[in-house]
Amino acid sequence: MIKKAADCKKVYNEKMRGGNGTVEITSFATPEELNNKGRLFANITLNPGCGIGFHMHENESELFYVMKGEVLYNDNGAEHPASAGDVMICPAGTGHAVTNNGTEDAELCAVIVYA
Amino acid sequence: MIKKAADCKKVYNEKMRGGNGTVEITSFATPEELNNKGRLFANITLNPGCGIGFHMHENESELFYVMKGEVLYNDNGAEHPASAGDVMICPAGTGHAVTNNGTEDAELCAVIVYA
Repeated sequence: MIKKAADCKKVYNEKMRGGNGTVEITSFATPEELNNKGRLFANITLNPGCGIGFHMHENESELFYVMKGEVLYNDNGAEHPASAGDVMICPAGTGHAVTNNGTEDAELCAVIVYA
Repeated sequence: MIKKAADCKKVYNEKMRGGNGTVEITSFATPEELNNKGRLFANITLNPGCGIGFHMHENESELFYVMKGEVLYNDNGAEHPASAGDVMICPAGTGHAVTNNGTEDAELCAVIVYA
């Protein structure tokens, strides 16, 4: 099946997990379409200055692929810059945060798989 | 953890699944990093005219997000155009193929989850 871009569900989260600004999440698949092996396959768009605050993933891992832009990634407490082409992995039982600290929009492709 | 773009494993497949040309696959995560819930989270880059031939996914589903470019997608036998922002899902027990029929490189973000 094909889902056209305009048909993908989009949500806007304000101050997500205590982060700054607005986080735009465009969902590509339902948990059922992921065979209930995970719950997210999505585009996360962060305008400059916007981000997702620090939070833990207890029974699932989240993986980010940076499609565009520059971000500051908090990897379970340690901050690192990341940019287009980089991959960040938050294994179950650890935490992360991400903020767009660049001057253009940042786009992440995110996957969450259960532990 | 962060994997810098240059550290992600890249493979080049010639005439993949009977398709034309070369398919470049940049792997973002191992099956273990996907908690063995799937086996692929990757960038698939197709130069113009290149593609992956028709094949079945028996015990797993594959999802594509078109990050860039224009492709012709064979959805279990029916061909449809797809372009940046579109999502294609190949549920377990069905088949698909994809070809770059545009004039610039096409980039897909691919996820395979087990059934």
